[in-house]
Amino acid sequence: MAEYAMAIDENRLEDWVELFDETCDYKIVTRENVEQNLPNVLMWCDNKNMLRDRVESYRHVNLYNLHYDRHVLGPLRFTGNDGAAWRFDVSYSLFQTELEGASRLFSVGRYRVEAIAAGDAARLKSVLVIADTGLVPSLLATPI
Amino acid sequence: MAEYAMAIDENRLEDWVELFDETCDYKIVTRENVEQNLPNVLMWCDNKNMLRDRVESYRHVNLYNLHYDRHVLGPLRFTGNDGAAWRFDVSYSLFQTELEGASRLFSVGRYRVEAIAAGDAARLKSVLVIADTGLVPSLLATPI
Amino acid sequence: MAEYAMAIDENRLEDWVELFDETCDYKIVTRENVEQNLPNVLMWCDNKNMLRDRVESYRHVNLYNLHYDRHVLGPLRFTGNDGAAWRFDVSYSLFQTELEGASRLFSVGRYRVEAIAAGDAARLKSVLVIADTGLVPSLLATPI
Repeated sequence: MAEYAMAIDENRLEDWVELFDETCDYKIVTRENVEQNLPNVLMWCDNKNMLRDRVESYRHVNLYNLHYDRHVLGPLRFTGNDGAAWRFDVSYSLFQTELEGASRLFSVGRYRVEAIAAGDAARLKSVLVIADTGLVPSLLATPI
Repeated sequence: MAEYAMAIDENRLEDWVELFDETCDYKIVTRENVEQNLPNVLMWCDNKNMLRDRVESYRHVNLYNLHYDRHVLGPLRFTGNDGAAWRFDVSYSLFQTELEGASRLFSVGRYRVEAIAAGDAARLKSVLVIADTGLVPSLLATPI
Repeated sequence: MAEYAMAIDENRLEDWVELFDETCDYKIVTRENVEQNLPNVLMWCDNKNMLRDRVESYRHVNLYNLHYDRHVLGPLRFTGNDGAAWRFDVSYSLFQTELEGASRLFSVGRYRVEAIAAGDAARLKSVLVIADTGLVPSLLATPI
């Protein structure tokens, strides 16, 4: 997850996509929606090509809302392991810095992750981002 | 400590209590009080039953100040080890999110922890929360 | 890096200096300067004696801007290893608390570190602090 966060923070979104398996699932929801079983999602890509499209569209279309991202992640809490797959939760804080210099808290929440072994490395099978913060979706230019 | 933080953040306070030993000590103080040797404490439970009472009282009485907690912890710094007990410090940042959606910094500080082996797991013998932030005690509905 | 952060946060700046090698390099720059290849630095000490001087000067001169520091670091991402040296990146969030009690976000960014083995421990050969936040240099009384 260190590389996951650094890839986003350094605007290496193509590297970020490469951490996922081809048959992956990436979804951002708010905690309120999860706890009330509401179906709203802020972003959802249910395979790797959708992630690629998303990043490509960001590269070509979005020229507004320029900022630096900075993730600070807590320790991993392992929640399960069946065969080649591990499941774990990680809390995150995400800060954004405008180009003129002020940093502010953008979102806090939790990743719920399923990863599988792939040679020496691991590949992300499923990343569910549960944001405590009720984000404004239109600001979600970059992934969390 | 990953499970410690997640249990509070997910409002599983009963699970949080179960991480402690029966003869435990849980105390929240401010850094200013520690450095000036003042006796004030913001919360103090000197055995596990007091923690249970605290959580039960929270479950039945406190219906105000609804919020989500989110801890992001830094790495452990081990400070000692005698026999079956380890001592370590961990820095924390604690964010709160109101139900309508804005997240804000609530407190930062440090845990000073003593843990003992208990079978395959560890049990918390002593947790001293030293808050840099001079907290308003009346807001301390949930533990840190 | 746990001890690096704790030493600063506990105002044990002399201990912080001792984590470095004699022929070390410590530099604070902003991310904007790095990405635009500008030469500005906010702080630069290119050997251990300069760090010692810096801390001594802080001890004797600076009596203003009293605050507590609190670093919360993310996981290490290793980026290289040649012989006895490791390279890794770490994201940081740094909070400051005024003595009267309010905590606020001071800076976020990344450490780019080179460390070498020294007996059982490690010694810091090079620490480059890349701050996302465009800091006001005059506030930089203590290191990051």
